[in-house]
Formats: sequence, C-alpha cells, structure tokens
Amino acid sequence: MVSFENDYIAGAHPLILKRLMETNMEPLSGYGTDPYCESAKKKIREACVCPEAEVDFLVGGTQTNAAVISSVLRDYEGVLAAQTGHVSVHEAGAVEYAGHKVLELPHKEGKIVPSVLREYLALFYADENHEHMVFPGMVYISHPTEYGTLYTRLEMEEIAKICRSYEIPLFLDGARLGYGLTSRRTDLTLKDIARLCDVFYIGGTKVGALCGEAVVFTKQNRPPHFMNSVKKRGALLAKGRLLGIQFDTLFTDNLYFEISRHAIDMAEELKDILRRKQIPFYLESPTNQQFVILENERIRELKKKVMFSFWEKYEEKYTVVRFATSWSTTKKDLEALDEAL
Amino acid sequence: MVSFENDYIAGAHPLILKRLMETNMEPLSGYGTDPYCESAKKKIREACVCPEAEVDFLVGGTQTNAAVISSVLRDYEGVLAAQTGHVSVHEAGAVEYAGHKVLELPHKEGKIVPSVLREYLALFYADENHEHMVFPGMVYISHPTEYGTLYTRLEMEEIAKICRSYEIPLFLDGARLGYGLTSRRTDLTLKDIARLCDVFYIGGTKVGALCGEAVVFTKQNRPPHFMNSVKKRGALLAKGRLLGIQFDTLFTDNLYFEISRHAIDMAEELKDILRRKQIPFYLESPTNQQFVILENERIRELKKKVMFSFWEKYEEKYTVVRFATSWSTTKKDLEALDEAL
Amino acid sequence: MVSFENDYIAGAHPLILKRLMETNMEPLSGYGTDPYCESAKKKIREACVCPEAEVDFLVGGTQTNAAVISSVLRDYEGVLAAQTGHVSVHEAGAVEYAGHKVLELPHKEGKIVPSVLREYLALFYADENHEHMVFPGMVYISHPTEYGTLYTRLEMEEIAKICRSYEIPLFLDGARLGYGLTSRRTDLTLKDIARLCDVFYIGGTKVGALCGEAVVFTKQNRPPHFMNSVKKRGALLAKGRLLGIQFDTLFTDNLYFEISRHAIDMAEELKDILRRKQIPFYLESPTNQQFVILENERIRELKKKVMFSFWEKYEEKYTVVRFATSWSTTKKDLEALDEAL
Amino acid sequence: MVSFENDYIAGAHPLILKRLMETNMEPLSGYGTDPYCESAKKKIREACVCPEAEVDFLVGGTQTNAAVISSVLRDYEGVLAAQTGHVSVHEAGAVEYAGHKVLELPHKEGKIVPSVLREYLALFYADENHEHMVFPGMVYISHPTEYGTLYTRLEMEEIAKICRSYEIPLFLDGARLGYGLTSRRTDLTLKDIARLCDVFYIGGTKVGALCGEAVVFTKQNRPPHFMNSVKKRGALLAKGRLLGIQFDTLFTDNLYFEISRHAIDMAEELKDILRRKQIPFYLESPTNQQFVILENERIRELKKKVMFSFWEKYEEKYTVVRFATSWSTTKKDLEALDEAL
Repeated sequence: MVSFENDYIAGAHPLILKRLMETNMEPLSGYGTDPYCESAKKKIREACVCPEAEVDFLVGGTQTNAAVISSVLRDYEGVLAAQTGHVSVHEAGAVEYAGHKVLELPHKEGKIVPSVLREYLALFYADENHEHMVFPGMVYISHPTEYGTLYTRLEMEEIAKICRSYEIPLFLDGARLGYGLTSRRTDLTLKDIARLCDVFYIGGTKVGALCGEAVVFTKQNRPPHFMNSVKKRGALLAKGRLLGIQFDTLFTDNLYFEISRHAIDMAEELKDILRRKQIPFYLESPTNQQFVILENERIRELKKKVMFSFWEKYEEKYTVVRFATSWSTTKKDLEALDEAL
Repeated sequence: MVSFENDYIAGAHPLILKRLMETNMEPLSGYGTDPYCESAKKKIREACVCPEAEVDFLVGGTQTNAAVISSVLRDYEGVLAAQTGHVSVHEAGAVEYAGHKVLELPHKEGKIVPSVLREYLALFYADENHEHMVFPGMVYISHPTEYGTLYTRLEMEEIAKICRSYEIPLFLDGARLGYGLTSRRTDLTLKDIARLCDVFYIGGTKVGALCGEAVVFTKQNRPPHFMNSVKKRGALLAKGRLLGIQFDTLFTDNLYFEISRHAIDMAEELKDILRRKQIPFYLESPTNQQFVILENERIRELKKKVMFSFWEKYEEKYTVVRFATSWSTTKKDLEALDEAL
Repeated sequence: MVSFENDYIAGAHPLILKRLMETNMEPLSGYGTDPYCESAKKKIREACVCPEAEVDFLVGGTQTNAAVISSVLRDYEGVLAAQTGHVSVHEAGAVEYAGHKVLELPHKEGKIVPSVLREYLALFYADENHEHMVFPGMVYISHPTEYGTLYTRLEMEEIAKICRSYEIPLFLDGARLGYGLTSRRTDLTLKDIARLCDVFYIGGTKVGALCGEAVVFTKQNRPPHFMNSVKKRGALLAKGRLLGIQFDTLFTDNLYFEISRHAIDMAEELKDILRRKQIPFYLESPTNQQFVILENERIRELKKKVMFSFWEKYEEKYTVVRFATSWSTTKKDLEALDEAL
Repeated sequence: MVSFENDYIAGAHPLILKRLMETNMEPLSGYGTDPYCESAKKKIREACVCPEAEVDFLVGGTQTNAAVISSVLRDYEGVLAAQTGHVSVHEAGAVEYAGHKVLELPHKEGKIVPSVLREYLALFYADENHEHMVFPGMVYISHPTEYGTLYTRLEMEEIAKICRSYEIPLFLDGARLGYGLTSRRTDLTLKDIARLCDVFYIGGTKVGALCGEAVVFTKQNRPPHFMNSVKKRGALLAKGRLLGIQFDTLFTDNLYFEISRHAIDMAEELKDILRRKQIPFYLESPTNQQFVILENERIRELKKKVMFSFWEKYEEKYTVVRFATSWSTTKKDLEALDEAL
C-alpha cells in the first residue's frame, strides 16, 4: 500500500546502502573513532561554515535530545520548550528521566514566540520565590517543528538574542532539518543555524539514513568527556562506522540537501492535490509534513488504500491527519493518493 | 515586627516542646522504631477511622511528595497535578529529579476540575501515539490548595471515582490539612479523606510542629520496603522520636484540630479587617491563607510594619499578596495589622 | 592491517546487507511494529524452544543492560554482578545513572561462583542493618564472560536455583552469546538458557549485525509497557526494521550459529598458533576471545603489523592482551598473525 | 534499660532545648534565612579558622552525603570511598539514586590508605579503556570512620595532596566529627580539616542535636544555587531555625567540643571496663565507638540488661558488637554495664 505515514517508512537512501556494502569488510575501530566518522565531521563542519564546531554522532532523536539537554543543563536548571515540543510530549518523559523538568511554553503553530519567551524569563527572575523553582537553563526549539512550521531568520535572531542576554544556550532539534533548509519558504541557512544556536543536531533517521543524528556544538562548548556521558546514557554505538559512513555519504555532493529538496517538491505537489480536492489545511506548513482536516468517515475509507497518520481530534466528526513526504516519496505515490482521494 | 508571612514563622506549639523536654533523656531506638512513633501511628489511624492504614513520618513536604510519588509510580508513569500545584511549581523539580514527569492540568482557583481530569484521561487513551507519552499514573491534589481553596466532598468523590475507573491512585498533599478540616466552609472530614484517597499526608510543619509530615497509606498499598526507599532518598530521620513525639502530641486530645481551628478563627477575623478596609480579595479562600490585591505603593508602606508574602503580579500597579494565619497568630497580631492598614 | 582488536571490527554479515537491500524500499511502520520484527521474534522463540517468550529488539549492549536492569528492579533493589562484569566496570555507570547500585561480587575468571552468591545472600539477610542497605534484586551474569569463559550447565542450574529460592530474577548478558553456544567446550544450549534465566539477550552487534540485541523475557515477566520504558531511556529505534531484518536473517537457516561456529574455529586455530609460539595464556578461554601475556617490547613490535587490545597490566614488563576472532575472521588473517609473531 | 546502642539514643543536649524554648515564638523567615542560621554560620567559620567558608545546614547524614556528592560531581564522575564507607554500604544506594557510582576502595580499619588511592588513580588513567569507565571525581572519607578510627594529620595531608594533583575534591563526612576532634589520640584539628578538605560537614545528629549537619565548603567552591539543589533533593527544611538555633548553641562557649570530650571520657572508661573483663577488642578505636568480640551466648545474656549493636559475624560462635558512648552517656550507665558484664 502507498504510504504517507511518516518520513521514516523506508530504509536508507540507496547511495548509503552502497557505501555500507563497499566498506563492509574493512576492519575499523569502534565508538566513532574510525576515519569515516572523521571525514563526516569535517564535511559537516564545512557545510555549517563553522570550523570550530565539534560534531558527534548518536543513534536517534529522543536519545540525542535527552543526552544533550541533560549533559548541558546544570543541576538546578530545566529546559524551556513549546508545549507541543517533541521533548514535552512524545518522548515518554526522557528528559525527566534524566532528572530535569521541561518548562512548557505556550506555542504558536508549534513555535515558541520570542515575546512569550522574553516575558517568561523576566517574570521568572521577578518572582521572589524563584529560588524554589526550576531555573530556565536552556531553550529547546525544533526546526521544522512538530507541525512542519519554520522559524524565520528574524525569529531565530530574536530567540538567540534573548538566550544570550540570560546566558542560557539555544538548542535546536533538527530531526527533520533537511526539510526545513530546503523549504521554498525559508530564509534560514545551515550557516545561520550554526551561528545562532549553541548546539543543534542534523537529523539522519528522517532524512535518508537507517538511523543517526549528528550533534553539533558550535561554540567550543561541548561538555567535557561528552562521549562518556553518552555511554552512561546507553547511547554510544559500538560500530560507530554505521553512523560515520551514513553521514559521510549524506554530506558528499550535497546528497542531504538534494534528497530533502525532493521531499519538498513532493510535498508541494501533495499540497496541490489536497487543494484541488478542497480539503482544508489545519495550518500552512512549508515543509514535508502536511496537516489537513478530514471527516472521520472519509478517513476510514481512505485508510483502505493509503497510509497516513492520525494527529489529533478536531471536532466531533472531524480529525486532523498528517501526510508526510520524504526522500523516498515518488510521483507514483502521489498519483495513487490522488486517485484514492 | 508582626508577621503574616506564612504559617511556619514560629517554632512549635508549646505542648510539643514540653513533651520533647519530658522525654529528652529516654534512650530510644532510631529511624521511627520507638514507642512514640508507634503511639502516634495508632492515634492517627483512629483519627482517620481507618484501622488498616499504614503510617510513616517524614520530615518535610517536598521530600514527602517526591518520596511518595516516585515510590508509587511505575516506571512509565507520571503524576497529574494542577499547573499551580506545589509539585508543579515550587519544589525545584523534585519529582523530575526522581525521574518522573508532572503532567500539568489547568486549574480553577488551584483545584483540579473533575471534568477536566476525566477529559484528559479519555483523550490520552484515545491518542494513537500514547505509547510514546508519559502515562498518567497518579493524581496529586493539595487540600487546602496553594490558593487556600478546598475541594468539596462531591468534587473529591468525583475525582476518586475517576481515579478508580482508571486504576490510578489518588494522592492528597495535606501540608495544611488541619486548616482545611477545620474550615467553616467544608464538608470533608479526615475520615472522608482516608476513604477517598489511596495515600495522603497530614502536615505537621505548617500546623504546629517543628517539622514532620505523617504519610498515610489507606488501602494496604504501602510500597514494599517503603522505609528503604525513604532512606535511599535521604529522607529517613535518625532520631525518629522527634517526629513520633510531635505527632503523638498533636493527636492527643484533639490538639491538631484545636490549633487549626484557632488559625481559622484568626483568618475569619483577618478577612473582616480586610473587608472593612475595602481591600479586594483575589479569590474567596475559606482557610488560613488570604490573597488580596494591593497597590504596589501601599505594599511598600505596609511592609515597614507588617510581614506578608508577595504572591504574583496582578496588573501594572497592583500585586497579589498573601496574609497567612496559623496556630501561633494572636489577636494582638490582628490588631497591629488593623492599625497598620 | 590485519585486526584481532575485537569482534565488531567489520560491518555486517553479507547476508544481512543483502536483506537490507532487498527490503529497502518497502514502506514499513516504525518502532518494531513491522512484519520483519514479528518474524524475527517468532524464529527466536523457536530457537529458544520457549513459545511463551517475549522478545524485543534494542540497539546496543550497555543500553540493553541498563534498560532491562532498571525496568525489572524494584526501587529498593540493586543488581548483583561480578566485579569484572561489564555493568560493573565498562559502562560508564549506566546502571547507577538509572538509580540503582551494582553490588559487586568477587569473581573467578570473570564468573560468579555459586557458593559465593549463596553466602552473600545469606549474610545480607542475616545482617540486622539490611533495611539500610541496597537489597539484592537481580543476578547479572555474562555468558561468555568478559574473559571469554563459560558457565557450565551445572553452575547455571545452581545459580538459577539460588535466584529462585530468593525470588530474584537471573539476567544473562549474551552480547557474545553465539560464541558461547558454539564453543567446543560447553554443555549449555540456548534452550537451557531460556529455561534457567528470567531474561537474557542474544547479541547481534558482536555476532554479525551492524547493531542490535534481542532481549528475551522467558517467564511471561516482561515489565508492563516495556517499550515505553525503552523509549524513556532513549533506546527505541524509529526504524525498527533495521533490527528486525537483521535478526530475522540471523535466525534463518541457522546463520547465527554458523557464523559463531566459524569464529570458534578461527579461535581454535589462533590458540594453536599462540601455543606453537609458546606464548603463555592468561587463562583458558573456550570462546572467541583469547588472553595472553606478552612482553611490552614485543607488543610494541607486533602492533606495527597486527591490531589487538590492551587488557591489563600483568607485571612490570608484561601485559595481558586480547586477540578476538569473529564471524569475519579469515584464514588469511591467521596466517598474517602467524607470520607477524 | 541502659543503652550503648548508638550515639543518637537521646534527644538533644538540654542547652539546645532551652534555646529552642526561648526563641520559640519569634516570627522568623524560613529556609535558613533567619538570624540564628546567620549567627551559627559565623561561629562555625570562626571555629574552622576559615573566614571564606560557606556554610549550609541540612537535616541528616545520608541526605547531606547524597546532596553534596551529587551536586559537586560532574556527569561522568563517581565518588571514591572505602568499601566500608557509609555511602558504600548503609545509605540504601542514595548516591546511586542520584545517578553516580560509588567507586569502592579496599580499606584498612575503615580508612582509605593513601598509597592505595594513589595507585587506583594512576591505574585508572593508564587504562586505555577508561573513557568507558566512571571517572574518579571526588574522594569521600569519614572521620571518625564507621569503625571509630581516625586519620592522622599526615594521612590527611597525603590524601589531600593526591586529590589536588588529580584536581578532584576531598569530602569529609563528619557525622561524628566532634568525637574525632576531642579524641585523646588525634593530631588533627578543625582548622586542619578546613584547610585540607574542599568540603566537609560537622555532624549534629550524633553530637547532641535533634537533627542537623553543617556543610562547610572551604574554598569558595560551593556549587551555584546549592540551596536549589538541596530543595530539589527534598532536603531543605522549612523551619531552618531548628537547625540554626541548634548549631548556634553547639558553637557557643565550645559546647560542641565539651560534650564530645565528655563522650570520649566515657569511652575511655568503657574501654577500661572492657579490658578489665578481658573482652577482646576487634580493633583499637580512639573515639566513642568501641568494637569487641563476644560469644554469641554471652550476647544473648547481656542483651537482657544492656542495649548495644550487632556489628558483624566474627566466627561461628563469636560476633563483633559495638558499644557507643555519646554526650548523653553517664557514669551510672557505665556502672550498670560493668555490673551486667
């Protein structure tokens, strides 16, 4: 069956599998100390235009969020995130498991609004009881957000400025970063992100890899013995080559950007189809995830032919559902959807 | 200076100090195994009309909340609480430190609204992604709440019923329980609470003791080796006698209720004074904490003569402040306040 | 350069890569809900001759140890392990990070001695202070051990019997299980292990997979919502297919056992070479890891031609080093080593 | 019955109770911000001859150990302690609950031997695998130890020197510090301890207070927002006055030293009695805890008249037991023991 269920329905981009095959029998040392990891780190530093960046490879998103957040936060701090942020809702309490509170902020289409952040911080320090409260010690944003929306450069500049004025780091969850960077409606580049964030990650799992997220500390601020902290959290992969080779391939000849752009092209065509069918959008998403409102009856019918995701209840008889494209989506998939609708 | 800053401004009720003196040189075994603890437990079981209750003594409220919540929750669960709940805001992230998320619900004057709780739980299980979410594994309420308000018996019955239908325990934070039980506008008795809650605690620190909270598991549901869990959390007092003697005194001849009622009487007189001065109440509180709205200018003046607490910003020029009475408040304190206002 | 550095120097067994290629473009649902995971679980249950077994796939060994141990232990319990156990020494404190103590027992060639275990447990409960101590709540053994040694069936029966008499689960770390099961000097089968252990895992990472460990709960004792606990620990792989396809391949046509047996054959030839060169063994290992004592001088020379691992200091001028074979070791590798020696 | 069971069998020194009475009705602000805490801190700084010391009051020993250790350690570090250290054995895993490993060292009569410490650290950094191990990040010693023994000044100097050369802090658990400082066989002063340790605490619970431990950071090295970390661990007492007044009293007119010296005098008489009765000592203790070897039969008899503690099994028919004196021990207690023996 044709599937728009999410952006990790397929295996890996064929070029990645090819490289895994080619290098398979080379004896390599473990835990990220192999030359492919080295090469991938170099290419990522270049793509970020950030020569001093420190890059590490972890396996998955939840793991990366928990490891970065809990390694960077001080004992008395928590992390600020949108109420809809992945760390707030869909990670089974992984940040709390690491002993820190997620301080939830109201969101606008999945985004933190700079003025809301500013006011939160001002009020926190104005509160005479704040010594008994969790200190805001980091700002977490996802880009694209869980709703497919994007921060503008201006918004990011504002948020980064607020973070700096309070001396708290800005952390960007880029599980779907490729789909943000290649959106037709963004003015934020990878270089901007490396400049504005203190730490962020470049998602592999949802952008063509079997698994893998590349964490980038941009300001010579990698926690000491970070890999030991990663090991302690059970997040250090023995065969680091699996991550190194994948990211080395993704950052060779712009593959990461090209396959992301393909997903965006597919998403734009998907939007045309949905519009033509007069299906109302839940919000305007410029990336690979599209949220629409469907009648429950229609959902039941459509599910027989196409896979997609339940998102949230809308009204008695209506539901918000998600269609996601990815590097693996084909024209044929879209035609099948068109027909099914 | 006269103080309405909180309900723990004084030492202990004189009868408690007297008993500490009288028993001081008796050699007693430690960690709560002395006869005074035994006697206090017996009296508490009787006061609760709950012969099967299991009672333990801990030192303070945050500690008790964290120890009970994290000992009772299962690994994949979090605790539901009002956004304004003590565990949500003013415990420096103690529940999260224990590895569990506080799932915050909107509140009404500090209380959880039964219908809101019911809907939250229904939606949680309706969400297809809930396997990646923190499971609601306990309901935490405070009574009186942080705003001095009280649950009615009907509300408590409803909440307890919802908890039972989802098989999750109901935990009541009674840091100020005495002031709730002796309010002139309550229909909830200690017996009701023992019947409706799975676990609750009777606050000593804020009701006449130097320190101490009596945890009551009501349904033969005390976690196995609970005192080891308490020790592991650094919450087991070596000289358990200090807690046993205090609670034994508080539950002899109704002392706990009498000193609580005194605080309520003082609070009612305080309310009369505030009303006479035409100071607007922030909300209607039937217990020992009274929240009023004062002009910032007036606050500055009043602070020269009377101690009270900043609560929260109201408007540009107005602030919500709190006046608390306690077992130690005197008529003279009220007269001084009356004059200062 | 030829390498005996460890058993994870190569990528994956070619048949695994082939299956990853063949299935690559199939749209599959995530998090272990795909049909390959289902099929792999079925085959593992059959290989274990344990139809009621519950099987889950995790990514790596440290992660698996921490997730299983901390999900199974009760709050007041710790895990018993040999002083040399992986969880005791080489996991950066992952079990402690999860809030539990590793109770270290003296070892014999990496193994727990049943009588030592029995005495520890008897003494623990005889100690009048044990209510302030960490309760022994699980026994962790590795098989093969970190020294390549194996438990006999009799030893395992004894340990399992002790565990049962104290009602604590027995957990076997099988990161290298294949090399134990196919050793020429073992009387323990996979069926025995499933019968005697309460939970164990079948290592993939070190036995031919890119990554992956298959956890087997054998007694209908899988913790409720275990996958949520796994997610909470950042250990749930989005593309569960990567694990399912690998284990499905490993447990098709006995591949897991055949490639393990190959490693054992190579190890036996390696031992012959070492013996011929009159290099003293540190201990007698019947599996794929061989520990020998070399002069420091000779180590320096040999390192120019062959890769192997430092293990521990032996004497001033001597060091214990490890040579490991694996499914990927070739006759040619052995010839190169023979020559280099 | 006369009791030598431990050094916390009685309430508080009468002068402490007297001060609690005298100050009882003063309205004071909470959480350690009252003038008695301030005064006590000043006196402790003076007693330590360490004007830059930062002093905080916590409630109990396990709590203090866990809070200090886990606030000071970095994520990848554990704490070195003797195998017999209180944090290693009798705190129910409180340090591990805080996410850190206790790295256990062999002991000599409860003490860490400087050369053993030095070798451990040298070997750790020599081990090529140490990036996967818990880094030694603090040294924990107790003084007096759990066996009543004392470090000499020379030993302390050596340990402090080793700590400094590895840049790890030295933490001294002084739960019974008074009994060490006033021993007839010590050359270590409070000033020495403040000079050599990075952080230590002065025990109140076992030296005349109802509860309370005074933590002293000596090198301007108090973790930022330490009280928030204390609150997060549920260890912040609302009525901080209870701790402030007690320590203020203990450090007025040398009370702490005088009552400790009394316990030592009683211990020396106790030793004379035991010697006269030709009861063999398990080890030579110069402080208030005395360990002797008794026949099991004799223990049963003696327990009818005197309370003391089981310590550990010695041989089939013999057991090590402990007699402890304290500030509250009287001549009459000793006479009763003499007679009972």
